[in-house]
Amino acid sequence: MIYAAIMGYGTIGSGVFEVLEKNKDKIAAAAGQPIEVKYVLDLRDFPGTPVEDKVIHDFSVIEKDPEVQLVVETMGGLNPSYPFVKACLLAGKHVSTSNKALVAAYGTELLAIAREKGVNFQFEASVGGGIPVIRTMYRAMAGDKIQEITGILNGTTNYILTKMDQEGWSFKEALKEAQALGYAEQNPEADVEGYDTCRKIAILTALATGREVDYQEIPTEGITEICAEDLRYADALGLSVKLVGSSQVQGKDAMVWVAPLMVGKDNPLYGVNDVYNAVLIKGNMLGTSMYYGSGAGKLPTASAVVADMIEEAQNLNCHVSMGWSDEKLKVQPSDNSVYRYFLRISGKFEELHHAAEHYLGECRIALLEGLNEFAVLTEPMEKSAFEQARGRLSEMLAQSGDRIIQVIHAEA
Amino acid sequence: MIYAAIMGYGTIGSGVFEVLEKNKDKIAAAAGQPIEVKYVLDLRDFPGTPVEDKVIHDFSVIEKDPEVQLVVETMGGLNPSYPFVKACLLAGKHVSTSNKALVAAYGTELLAIAREKGVNFQFEASVGGGIPVIRTMYRAMAGDKIQEITGILNGTTNYILTKMDQEGWSFKEALKEAQALGYAEQNPEADVEGYDTCRKIAILTALATGREVDYQEIPTEGITEICAEDLRYADALGLSVKLVGSSQVQGKDAMVWVAPLMVGKDNPLYGVNDVYNAVLIKGNMLGTSMYYGSGAGKLPTASAVVADMIEEAQNLNCHVSMGWSDEKLKVQPSDNSVYRYFLRISGKFEELHHAAEHYLGECRIALLEGLNEFAVLTEPMEKSAFEQARGRLSEMLAQSGDRIIQVIHAEA
Repeated sequence: MIYAAIMGYGTIGSGVFEVLEKNKDKIAAAAGQPIEVKYVLDLRDFPGTPVEDKVIHDFSVIEKDPEVQLVVETMGGLNPSYPFVKACLLAGKHVSTSNKALVAAYGTELLAIAREKGVNFQFEASVGGGIPVIRTMYRAMAGDKIQEITGILNGTTNYILTKMDQEGWSFKEALKEAQALGYAEQNPEADVEGYDTCRKIAILTALATGREVDYQEIPTEGITEICAEDLRYADALGLSVKLVGSSQVQGKDAMVWVAPLMVGKDNPLYGVNDVYNAVLIKGNMLGTSMYYGSGAGKLPTASAVVADMIEEAQNLNCHVSMGWSDEKLKVQPSDNSVYRYFLRISGKFEELHHAAEHYLGECRIALLEGLNEFAVLTEPMEKSAFEQARGRLSEMLAQSGDRIIQVIHAEA
Repeated sequence: MIYAAIMGYGTIGSGVFEVLEKNKDKIAAAAGQPIEVKYVLDLRDFPGTPVEDKVIHDFSVIEKDPEVQLVVETMGGLNPSYPFVKACLLAGKHVSTSNKALVAAYGTELLAIAREKGVNFQFEASVGGGIPVIRTMYRAMAGDKIQEITGILNGTTNYILTKMDQEGWSFKEALKEAQALGYAEQNPEADVEGYDTCRKIAILTALATGREVDYQEIPTEGITEICAEDLRYADALGLSVKLVGSSQVQGKDAMVWVAPLMVGKDNPLYGVNDVYNAVLIKGNMLGTSMYYGSGAGKLPTASAVVADMIEEAQNLNCHVSMGWSDEKLKVQPSDNSVYRYFLRISGKFEELHHAAEHYLGECRIALLEGLNEFAVLTEPMEKSAFEQARGRLSEMLAQSGDRIIQVIHAEA
């Protein structure tokens, strides 16, 4: 019997308890012995529930109980999750967390403590909910050098973009529905501004390169400026708009960014809709593979936490390396990166498209009926070249009182 | 330093050597120490290549050398791979294989020997090439009960179906091109008759249920009867045709089959084209996830073999359980399973579609110009009910000299 404690009995924490109960036999077989929850740490009591007798309010009970070998952190935020997790690792306990904020901010330090203490700090559920992308990177791709990661890592924004596309809703309408369904917070900033995706691509980049990534260095753009017309133009061009986190490994560093990206039908991300997440990974030997599934949700996320617990139970006396060191990665500028660019330009197509192509080169054109504007999609070009052309085109348009309404980059 | 031997220096075997060389540093870090190939067993010599001095022709050299801890089997077939692998395991060596025929036929016995000897028998590359589906099942989904698997598991047939769909080629034309490109064998039977997919779904089902699956019990239908018209009708109905292996777990047993299946645009398998493979897995907690990538190819497959070797190096003194026991699974009949059915019916649509709907219930209809036939897609119905209706419809059609030209099942 291995004893566990769950810190934070909210959606995910109670999901972990549920998974451990429902799949008890299979989990015991995989872990080598049964896993039993001894404590549930929460500010609340849960009278009349199966955890009634396990609830404690004092963290030190867990910290000081040598019988507890596995600790689950599902409180979220940094305080008190950071001091609690650190104390558990220092006390020689294995910790599994679903908390991306904690991993993005303190992953390097917590992994170093785990290494030193010969225990494990695991966080499969922190990226992609139930999709086993982290385990895939350090287990299945252990012999591969990861060159590129592009992921739809936030279910809320993917839901919003899907509804704007399929139902023609505005961003505000889609957000409101997402909030009504519980997909988005009342303060949706972390999702719609891309901050959540930013922390997740930072974690994946650290695993891909073995180096610490400061998520605050990552250029991050959300979806608040995307409107229904953008999606209609995209559709006309055979593209769909996804909020992605992307990382291209360059030597020991990487070019990392978060922004809306237009992808074509040949890209496996094209058809990833609603709250689903998906991550494309390119390895130097494996080539491109994709991992797709529920990016959030009580039981999928809890299932990933339980997979961590099983791996910890299989490695009670051994730290499993994920190859994430304390060397620092420098996020590289994306000036030389090559994309296509989607632009919406105000004014009459007949009068302006030659000028647009004069600056941007040959383009694919899209028109929507009834709008005094048009859209173009450039050929692949370097970002620095595009920025120059964009500046010149803007100047030219200003002479007739016109302007570039929107710019979204598209895969090359 | 850990010493390895590669048995069979063909495409995959030489790929394993290449991956070990190219990603040497990362592999050493993940494995905890460098992995060095000591022997290459092959009937041929390879003068002037980097393995020149490692080539041996006598298997017993490997068997008797206690320094060799990891053995790779990439010979294919059953003889001598079966006796060689068995002897290696009995000699206390870890074995990794890419050989689905070996795993499907002798997996249970070889895993039992590995368990008894405290070593590992691994076979990630035997299903889905470079896609880490096996490791995902026993690692990432260790706490999940797998309920359903549906996979595009054969790249050759997926290439053929893609070309028939996108280029309008006949089956024969597409097969010829696949052979010219080296995707298909000169005797393509194993691919196009579904036998390869059959062995792979047998392996995945054994991992999902923990029970031995006799692949010879699995009803298997290939793609030789699919023609370009079927794909044109499918397109008109918003569907695409994929050869899948499918397994639905029912208690301790499973309903398993291999056949062409029509899937809709909402199914992540819909857009999986060319030689790519993809596997949908449904867990009782995780829900549906999908794994997509190169189903074959030298380096992707070799990368999967090397991931096995790294896991073996991390567990030199410990058998990692995949939960595959020697209990036998009984493949369940699919009479109660519910699908839609696609039928092509000869004769005039105007005269016959009422009769068709009389027997089959309300249907979606598709017509192609210039053909004296039409297609229908039924609502979801039980297989047994469909077979009855099909019989009656056939009798009725026979009266006017017409007939059912084609039947393909579609997801419900």
